[in-house]
Amino acid sequence: MKTIYRTAHAADVTSIGETVAVAGWVQARRDHGGVIFIDLRDSSGLLQVVLDPAVLGEAKDLRMEFCVMVSGEVRARPEGTVNPNLATGGVELGATALTVLSTSAVLPFQIEDRVDVDERARLKYRYLDLRRPKMAANLKARSRAIAVMRRVMDDLGFLEVETPTLIASTPEGARDLLVPSRHQKGSFYALPQSPQLFKQLLMVAGVERYYQVAKCYRDEDFRSDRQVEFAQLDFEGAFWDRDDVLETLEEVTSAVTREVRGVELSRPFPRLTWQEAMDRFGSDKPDTRFGMEIVDLSETFAGTGFRAFGASLEEGGTVRGINAGAIESTRSRMDALTERAKELGAKGLVWMVVEDDATLRSPVAKFLSGDEMEGLKVALGATPGDVLLMAADAEWRTVAGVLGGLRLDLGKPGSHDELAPLFVIDFPTFEPTGDGGWAASHHPFTAPVDVDQMANDPANSISRAYDLVLNGSELGSGSVRIFDPVAQAKVFEVLGISKEQAESRFGWFLEGLRYGTPPHAGFAIGIDRFVAILQDEPNIRQIIPFPKTQTGSDPLTGSPTPVEETQLAELGIRVRPDAKPEA
Amino acid sequence: MKTIYRTAHAADVTSIGETVAVAGWVQARRDHGGVIFIDLRDSSGLLQVVLDPAVLGEAKDLRMEFCVMVSGEVRARPEGTVNPNLATGGVELGATALTVLSTSAVLPFQIEDRVDVDERARLKYRYLDLRRPKMAANLKARSRAIAVMRRVMDDLGFLEVETPTLIASTPEGARDLLVPSRHQKGSFYALPQSPQLFKQLLMVAGVERYYQVAKCYRDEDFRSDRQVEFAQLDFEGAFWDRDDVLETLEEVTSAVTREVRGVELSRPFPRLTWQEAMDRFGSDKPDTRFGMEIVDLSETFAGTGFRAFGASLEEGGTVRGINAGAIESTRSRMDALTERAKELGAKGLVWMVVEDDATLRSPVAKFLSGDEMEGLKVALGATPGDVLLMAADAEWRTVAGVLGGLRLDLGKPGSHDELAPLFVIDFPTFEPTGDGGWAASHHPFTAPVDVDQMANDPANSISRAYDLVLNGSELGSGSVRIFDPVAQAKVFEVLGISKEQAESRFGWFLEGLRYGTPPHAGFAIGIDRFVAILQDEPNIRQIIPFPKTQTGSDPLTGSPTPVEETQLAELGIRVRPDAKPEA
Repeated sequence: MKTIYRTAHAADVTSIGETVAVAGWVQARRDHGGVIFIDLRDSSGLLQVVLDPAVLGEAKDLRMEFCVMVSGEVRARPEGTVNPNLATGGVELGATALTVLSTSAVLPFQIEDRVDVDERARLKYRYLDLRRPKMAANLKARSRAIAVMRRVMDDLGFLEVETPTLIASTPEGARDLLVPSRHQKGSFYALPQSPQLFKQLLMVAGVERYYQVAKCYRDEDFRSDRQVEFAQLDFEGAFWDRDDVLETLEEVTSAVTREVRGVELSRPFPRLTWQEAMDRFGSDKPDTRFGMEIVDLSETFAGTGFRAFGASLEEGGTVRGINAGAIESTRSRMDALTERAKELGAKGLVWMVVEDDATLRSPVAKFLSGDEMEGLKVALGATPGDVLLMAADAEWRTVAGVLGGLRLDLGKPGSHDELAPLFVIDFPTFEPTGDGGWAASHHPFTAPVDVDQMANDPANSISRAYDLVLNGSELGSGSVRIFDPVAQAKVFEVLGISKEQAESRFGWFLEGLRYGTPPHAGFAIGIDRFVAILQDEPNIRQIIPFPKTQTGSDPLTGSPTPVEETQLAELGIRVRPDAKPEA
Repeated sequence: MKTIYRTAHAADVTSIGETVAVAGWVQARRDHGGVIFIDLRDSSGLLQVVLDPAVLGEAKDLRMEFCVMVSGEVRARPEGTVNPNLATGGVELGATALTVLSTSAVLPFQIEDRVDVDERARLKYRYLDLRRPKMAANLKARSRAIAVMRRVMDDLGFLEVETPTLIASTPEGARDLLVPSRHQKGSFYALPQSPQLFKQLLMVAGVERYYQVAKCYRDEDFRSDRQVEFAQLDFEGAFWDRDDVLETLEEVTSAVTREVRGVELSRPFPRLTWQEAMDRFGSDKPDTRFGMEIVDLSETFAGTGFRAFGASLEEGGTVRGINAGAIESTRSRMDALTERAKELGAKGLVWMVVEDDATLRSPVAKFLSGDEMEGLKVALGATPGDVLLMAADAEWRTVAGVLGGLRLDLGKPGSHDELAPLFVIDFPTFEPTGDGGWAASHHPFTAPVDVDQMANDPANSISRAYDLVLNGSELGSGSVRIFDPVAQAKVFEVLGISKEQAESRFGWFLEGLRYGTPPHAGFAIGIDRFVAILQDEPNIRQIIPFPKTQTGSDPLTGSPTPVEETQLAELGIRVRPDAKPEA
């Protein structure tokens, strides 16, 4: 679009002889024998501009990141100065007019990808940080990803419906962000952790296909991959079953990957049951880009004389191992791995190195029989040079966690060049709370596969929940929901939620289920984590336009900030004396 | 998409002889000689289903809004029972299988457009209210409108960028909604009233074309057309001038109107200066669907002997009038109009009725000269039967407001069948605060047409702000922004904002302006008001999926609610004793 400031974008300036006006920023400035060269940057790219300060006096004063408007004639660059890496590398603009639209103060850091700048400074001057090519590309990728998600959902007949963000707080909402009401002083709204109950009510309302790029809030400890506010692609379908959700997910994530990365994901995505994921990869979000799978060695060591293994097996436990391959096998490295295994919850780590003659070198080799050693080598596919790592415990989940953790430490690729999406299905319905009770693994509105079996044997109940995993990161989760109030009541019973508690927490929602609720299922994908992986960025703050630090503060605006007493009084609240911030 | 619950949607069932499975809700149920007819409703429409209770025993128990799955064979309806108003009116489904997926409790109200239900009940059972055809259509229209907006912006090369919703509160943000921080107890985030400063910083960041469907929050008195949370299409362009914004607005609103209403808006939209809008229509959001324009009669009555007019003119004021046309002209009606004029700020209202012989009947006729009466008739184009209404005041804005208000009362169309969009441009930069100072008419980042003139003569300064008006409603507003820190400082000076105050309020933003800020301009459209007009709904609560009442409460969830003391303590706040809600 032409404006009064420009007739063309920098990257479109390629026709020699044309007269154009461009506008943008001074990215670089070089003086060559009385002539000044600048690289002019705009949102499309770069253009070399040549200015004669004898004619255009202002050119002498140009500095980095000045915002300028330049017009002139496009001409071929002199031979030997063509830049083949640039769309406009064959031309330059011979300036006949220059207007400095605005000057720039001295920059706090250079606008270049390769400059390493403290993250706090980058966030404080985010508007400069976002000028860096990689960050500008991340912003575009995020925008593009969301646009593609919406396009796919629209094409599939989903209706985008906005759910409220000032909602009711629930008594267990200990992590709710609260908003004091001015009109009803002493009362509070909560910001939503997800649109879960509203989207289920949209199914009751007959919407049938709902989606939304929903802003959600969770006031938890900040980790590198979490933010207090975050966006998710949230969707739900009525008269839907699990596979309808999974197919929709494949459609959406494939389209995004295609457009953002130019890569076609192989479909259908693998589906691993939770049990299989735990057994083979020691994780409910397995990274399948590399092998090093966990092997159950319990049969191999049945009746072993090696106490460390035998004792675990006698307690009903397990012995498992991985073949870590030809890693460094010095004693100090093995000691470090043992330490790491203990951090991960192991009592110890058994390691063995396969020597050139196929014998096993290990401090514990002497406790194993020849059959055991042979069986071990076969089970782990051992060849000379390989390092074998084993753990045993009465609890299989401990062993899975230890070996799953070591596996990632030793094998996880350093970049996201390869993309390995998969679904984990058939999660346990409940997790033990530790005091004999049960907590919902997913959330209490998730349908168990078998309601009666769930009520009688909660420990072994499988739920209709599923996760989408990409390169070892959980991108999101969903489930087939309970749509029968009787089944819902039974789940509350197992969870130890009384009728009265259920009523006070979600009575308004349970009331809705009574009016002809259709079967339904849905999902939510965390957008930032997905885009971060596609852009091969290690943390989602690289993807979010204006993120907060790990303690939830914003170096750009200074938020959160103290607020005047009078302003709080209008909202009916005050700050507790022990919580006064330093002014 | 076929699922395990259905092979087709109701509206797609038209092929006689086909075997299909459908799923949906029982909209109506009729018993006819042992055979049961139901209208099955799903998101696509209706299908008549015929069930034989002798074969399908469950059919006897079907009640309104039960959720069912039915399969059977499609057959032609018997002659004489065809419904030409229904896509599926020629067929019916002869059921061979019936599954009740879920039953329904007795409905609090009927699921029909024509039933008049208390709004509180409708909001409490919003999931049932949204099943009504008109509400379902509103939901779809809103979804569609937003999708079209996004498509147009994407096509125009805009980047959708998400700005944060937990931001810094500003000292003047008396209407900010606040969110206490758990990590920095005693400190607060604010929810944004608009993404204004962030979008301007995106211009500094070089984004050049930004848009967002932004959730905004304003904690003000609730009126029929305001909600505490609302969505706006927010956009901004760098190297942009006013007309770039107005053309983009025409493009977006025309596309939405085309797709939601099937109507092509005539372009370009009329542009009225603020002064012209006030002079001709007595409003800065004129409804131009009807005439009854205001006429300046000051010349006609220059030197009049009629004191009510003469006094105002001597004080430098004005006499203006409208021709209200052939309205009822009884004395009681005229008295009522005079009362209304006084409510609108007039000292009085002069009315005259044009008799059949073209003489003027009025209590004040005797004070006017023959020339004045003739001049008046010519100026107002009076013909027999017309009622002429006049007001005079030392303040022209009072007269404009009075006549503009009467004009709407007398002429405003009762529906939005006709659509009359227009732009109001050239707003005054400032409004007097009443104590000799100035307040920004738009906001303090709006560029004045002439910075020096603004500094010297604020009363007559024109700003580069503009509004989009549709059928007398302001759909949104925008402006060319100040991009020069020096000009920004001058505006603050006129507004009486000291350097220190400016620094403490928006220092982080002003810092950003120092790094080569491009010229930029933008706009925000209120989505709900726009869609409400297109759907001819009188209030935006008909358009918003889950709205709040005028006091900000949600009858569905009960929010806002009291929160336990322990939960507040974790956030470092407590409720003031005088603000305790009733439990």
